[in-house]
This record gives sequence, structure tokens and C-alpha cells, in this order.
Amino acid sequence: MRDFNFKFNTKILFGKNKLEEIIPEIKMVGSRLLLAYGGGSIKSIGLYDEIVALLNKHQIPFEELSGIRPNPGIESVREGVKICRENNLDFVLAVGGGSVLDCCKAIAAGVHYEGDPWDFMVQKAVVKKAVPLGTILTLAATGSEMNGNAVISNSETFEKRAMGAPILCPVFSLLNPEYTYTVNKWHTAAGITDIISHVLELYFTPEKSTQVQDAMSEALIKTTVSLSPVVLEQPENYEARAQIMWTSTLALNGLLSFGKLPGDWSTHLIEHEVSAIYDITHGAGLAIIFPAWMTYVLDEQNAWRFAKLARNVWGIIDTDDLSAAHKGIAAMKSFFSSIGMPVSLKEVDIDDSQLGTMAEKACRFGSIGLIKKLNKADIVEIFKIAL
Amino acid sequence: MRDFNFKFNTKILFGKNKLEEIIPEIKMVGSRLLLAYGGGSIKSIGLYDEIVALLNKHQIPFEELSGIRPNPGIESVREGVKICRENNLDFVLAVGGGSVLDCCKAIAAGVHYEGDPWDFMVQKAVVKKAVPLGTILTLAATGSEMNGNAVISNSETFEKRAMGAPILCPVFSLLNPEYTYTVNKWHTAAGITDIISHVLELYFTPEKSTQVQDAMSEALIKTTVSLSPVVLEQPENYEARAQIMWTSTLALNGLLSFGKLPGDWSTHLIEHEVSAIYDITHGAGLAIIFPAWMTYVLDEQNAWRFAKLARNVWGIIDTDDLSAAHKGIAAMKSFFSSIGMPVSLKEVDIDDSQLGTMAEKACRFGSIGLIKKLNKADIVEIFKIAL
Repeated sequence: MRDFNFKFNTKILFGKNKLEEIIPEIKMVGSRLLLAYGGGSIKSIGLYDEIVALLNKHQIPFEELSGIRPNPGIESVREGVKICRENNLDFVLAVGGGSVLDCCKAIAAGVHYEGDPWDFMVQKAVVKKAVPLGTILTLAATGSEMNGNAVISNSETFEKRAMGAPILCPVFSLLNPEYTYTVNKWHTAAGITDIISHVLELYFTPEKSTQVQDAMSEALIKTTVSLSPVVLEQPENYEARAQIMWTSTLALNGLLSFGKLPGDWSTHLIEHEVSAIYDITHGAGLAIIFPAWMTYVLDEQNAWRFAKLARNVWGIIDTDDLSAAHKGIAAMKSFFSSIGMPVSLKEVDIDDSQLGTMAEKACRFGSIGLIKKLNKADIVEIFKIAL
Repeated sequence: MRDFNFKFNTKILFGKNKLEEIIPEIKMVGSRLLLAYGGGSIKSIGLYDEIVALLNKHQIPFEELSGIRPNPGIESVREGVKICRENNLDFVLAVGGGSVLDCCKAIAAGVHYEGDPWDFMVQKAVVKKAVPLGTILTLAATGSEMNGNAVISNSETFEKRAMGAPILCPVFSLLNPEYTYTVNKWHTAAGITDIISHVLELYFTPEKSTQVQDAMSEALIKTTVSLSPVVLEQPENYEARAQIMWTSTLALNGLLSFGKLPGDWSTHLIEHEVSAIYDITHGAGLAIIFPAWMTYVLDEQNAWRFAKLARNVWGIIDTDDLSAAHKGIAAMKSFFSSIGMPVSLKEVDIDDSQLGTMAEKACRFGSIGLIKKLNKADIVEIFKIAL
């Protein structure tokens, strides 16, 4: 087990009828808000009206930033920074899924930074100061509600890159499972895939002294898998939505990575290049790339870990590690298919024309990966498995 | 899943060579210390000298409270409060196991309370203000290092009672597995039993929509069980000590109880009455009472939960819930025996002379328990099973 220092910075407000509880949390650190959201979904479920009424009732002035898109773009970040500066806003309230939350983190960081906020994504600048932010989550997927990380896209350069800092952790996150009732099957399944992928990215480490972290990781995946049919068939099943929502938060709030190397993350980095060019749903991209990545990097040295996952999560009974590992990959692929996710590039109409470009961009800052270092040629091979 | 609000208040410093890192944490909130510890163990492992040298180096004035005993007594709490007041101390540094930590929480609460600190234990007073405290843990067992709870004994009244408040959460806890190397087999095994018992107290709830909490609970017990032989046979195995130490913290930091009823806790309440009179090691008392409690409360309605535990933790293969449950209890008892814990009162020389007295005191504030309400007669029956 590796040394670590950690303090959770986010207060969680979980459950129904808690919207008004955000007011004292906001007032503790802010007085003038940026209210940021995506498309119309928060309006159609009535949440937007409730929030606006609440802010008016408590006389909290606010400006709005709307239209933040999935795979959020740097242009929204720039726009949010501008609105905050022009109106002296000192708190960002992000209402939506991970895309809105991530965009708002970049805005929060950008307000006090003189350069272009894209600098954070290309490692030209580090976050030193940030406007506090709070979140109201409407999609269980990214875990962004309890960490300081964000992923932003740049449609001019076809890039999708990550940034992060502890001060970008939301001061509070309101998690009301009812707000996820209207998430359709596709996005629910993509969220499930994203949750499982986060756990797996952290799970794939060459270290062996990670028993409790591994056991908890397996617990989160098993819970997600077992409840997936329920949320997909009964979108308004509060209990199942609640379990998935909370599992999503636990998957990426630090809990699974304490005392370990920071995970592999190759699949996320590779997928980012796919969705940067083709703008596919992130979770769908992960369902395609993860099994392909596993198939490519699996070898005799690391087979024990793949086999552990296969046995403890997918119930594979096979004493041979390599064989168990392959069966586990097949089981995972079959699970993704069962929830309606694509498991090949072909299924989302991506051909082999950009494989080299995407592979090159994925390792733009050098080779990637933890349990196996990958260069451009390796990544092209992974894409070929995924075709 | 039930609604909850939560923020973790404790910063964890986990690993080797981190002692000096406590200084900035202390300086953030305090300037004059109470250094509190138990017997001589922190002196024999050299930790006491290191701490004193460090405080002197950083010119932090401190007074000492030593001799805090296992099942910590209210007299130590009163003494600590007196020392803090007389010397205007504004920070408590607890160095030791759960007993020292619990004693220090009661001291922290008592400094600003005009009455006798025992009032907190008998629900005559609630904690409104407290001196901040930090901890350096030397025993993996109670989980006290990341929560606001404490259990204090009163040797005059033969009582052992709990208190708690969020502001009693340590501001930091230093967890160095090396500090647990010299914990002997008996206390290591008692600590393991305490960890498992905490998870089980939280696990036994009548609720069914607790899938992720249950899965994580099972993960923590399985990790503890699988590493027990290693720490018992190789007390200086860093990796195993580290896993057990971190699991111990996770078992009672809130993680397993979010969104649920607060657990059953009958076994702890019953055991407290045993160790209040006979002063046995808390973990040993739990190893005796837990299987007896399970045997008594198990019925057709709640068998599903006992069976879930039996199958997922103890590997019982039996499709009948009641039968699986009984096999699970037997497996747990056998595990406790295998690590050297007693599983009957007879083994610790306790006869039936005080059963009625202990049972009466256990339900002094009314019947206890969540999955089954227990009155005096029930508790006597549990003791009889445990004889």
C-alpha cells in the first residue's frame, strides 16, 4: 500500500426534497451566482423553474450560461469565464450531468487565470485559485460531483483533454435520484458503462497489495451490473436509480484509489480521441474500447488481475488465469451488449480511416498506460481489435 | 435508500515517515497541546520520544496526560479536561488505540462544558463546542480515527456508554501501519474482531435497498478475514498491517452507513455491559456475543440477510436461507476461534451470576436493537447461548 494524504472536500446532500438545502451551502461561500446548464432537460423536468424561484426567493442574484453540450467545449468555458468576470460572480452552480459539471470546473478555474483556459488542458498552466462551485446532478455517470477533475473538448483542434485540482472539488453536490428518471435508455446505459470503466481504470494496476481497494472495486461493479436491468426497464425505480447514482459517485471520489498507483486510464485517453473526432457518447466509446484494450494488453504476467476480476465480478469458474481472463472479457462485452451499448467501432459507423490520427493524438504527451505502456502502434492495434 | 447529508471532516495522513506532517495540521487550528496516551507502548516503540522532539523543535508547548487505560475511564477524561483548562490548551493530540482516541474526544468535548463530562454519556448533555483534536493511531480496531464517536467507562457505576458529535471528528489522523507492528497476537485478533463487528452492526438492518452498502461491507469483511492469518503470523508485514489498518478506518467512517438506518448495535451495547463489569478486551467480548446474538435473533423474516452474509462472505453454498444462515454463524464462530478469540463466556471465566444485572443495564434506556427489539429477558437468553 502506498502512502497517501486525503481529505474529502465535498459535502453530499443525497435524496429527495433537498433543493432548498443548497441555499445555506451557497451562502457560506458565495453571493452572486453563475447558473450553468446544458440543453433543455432541466427545463422539461421543472428543475430550472424550481432553482430560479429558489434563488429569487432568497434574493441571490445570478446570471445564466446555457447550452453546455456533451463533450463540453472550451468555447462554453470561455463564455462562462467572461460572464463571471463581467458580473463579478463568485459562485458557480452547475446543474446537469458530468459535461456541465466539468465545464463549470474549468470556468471556476478560469475566472482567476489571465490566460486562455485551454492552457489548463495542455499543461501550460496549473490551477492556483478557483471560484467555489456547487452541483446539482442529473445523470449518474462521471463521478465529477465529488472530485476535482474535468474533461474539456476543443472542436477547433479535435482534442479532448483532462485537467484537475483539489480546489475544483464542489463544495456541495446535491444528488437526487428523481432528477435522473427522464434519462433515456441510451444515456442510462452509457452512464453505467462510464461508472464501470472508472472502477476498471483504477483496478488495473500492477500492484498486488491492494486487497481492500480491489474488493471494494468489485463490489461497485457487481452492484452496478446487478441493478442495470432494473434502471433500464423501470426508469422511475427510485431505489435502483439511487443505488446507481451513489455508486457512480463512489467510483471516482478517491475511495478506490487511496494507497495505490493512480490507475491505468489508457481506455479513457484512447476513447477521448474517438469522441473528440466523432463526437460519440463517451460511455458508448468506452464500451467499444475497454474490451479491445483488455484483449490487447492481457499477458501472462498480468493475467492474475484480469482473472481476479473475471472470477469475482463475472463469476467465471476457471483455474487457469489466462483462460479465465479471456472469459471475463467476453462476459463484460456481452454485458455491454445486453444494455444496448455498441462493442465495435463498426456499430457506431466508424471506419479505419482515422485510426492513425487518433492513436497519435492519444500519445501526444508520450506513451500512455500503467499495466502496459502503449505507443502509437499499440493503440492502432487496439483500434483494429475494436473495428 | 434513505436521504443523507454528509461531509467527511478528517484528513487522513497514511503511511511511513509522515510524523512531521502533523505540525502544519496542528498549527492550522491550535497552539498549545494536550499530548495524551495510554501505557508505555508508545514509549517502547520510540514514538513518544519522536513526538516530544518534534513538538520541541517546532516550539509547540504541551502538557501530558498518560495512563489512559483500555475501556477508558471517565476519571481520565476529567483529568484531561482539568489539565486543558489549567493550561489553556487548545488542541488535543491523541496517540494510541481507540481507547486513547475516545478518551480524548470526551476531553475535547468536556473542556467547554461546565458540568461533569459523564453527562454526555448519560444523555444529560449534548456536545455543542469542542477543542479540535488530531490522532496518531497505534492499533487497528475501533475506527475512532475518522468519526466523532467515543465510548467511555465509569468504574464507580460499572457503566460503559457512548457519546458522539460531528465536531469530535479528528481534524487529522496519522495512520502509520508500522506503529502497529508491536501489537501482540491477542490484541491484533481482538482488533480484527472489532473491525468485523462494526461492519456487521451496520450490515444488520431490515432494509433491502442497500445493495452497494452491503457489497462494500462484504468486501471489508472478506479482506479482513483473508489477511488475518498474515498479520497474526507476520506482525511486521507492512502490507498486511496497512490493509487491515485502512479497512478498520473504512469500517466506521460513515461509508457503510450512508443512506441506511444506523445499524443494529445490540451486540456492542450488550458487550459494553460485559466489559464494564469484567473489564475484558472489547474485541474478545464481541467474538463471544456476536454469534450468540445472531443465533438468537435469526428468524424466517430476516434469514435472507443472514444468508446473504453467509454466502457472500463465508462462501456457504446452500439455497435454504435459514440453513445457510446457521452455517454462516458457525463459520464466523470458527473463524474467531481460529484467530485465538474466545467464543463463549466460559473461556474468559465469566459465569452466570451477573447475567440479569448486565441484561438490565444494557436496556437501561429502553429496548435495544434494530432487526429485533430486545428487552432484558431477550438479552439474558443471548447470554445463556454465549455461556
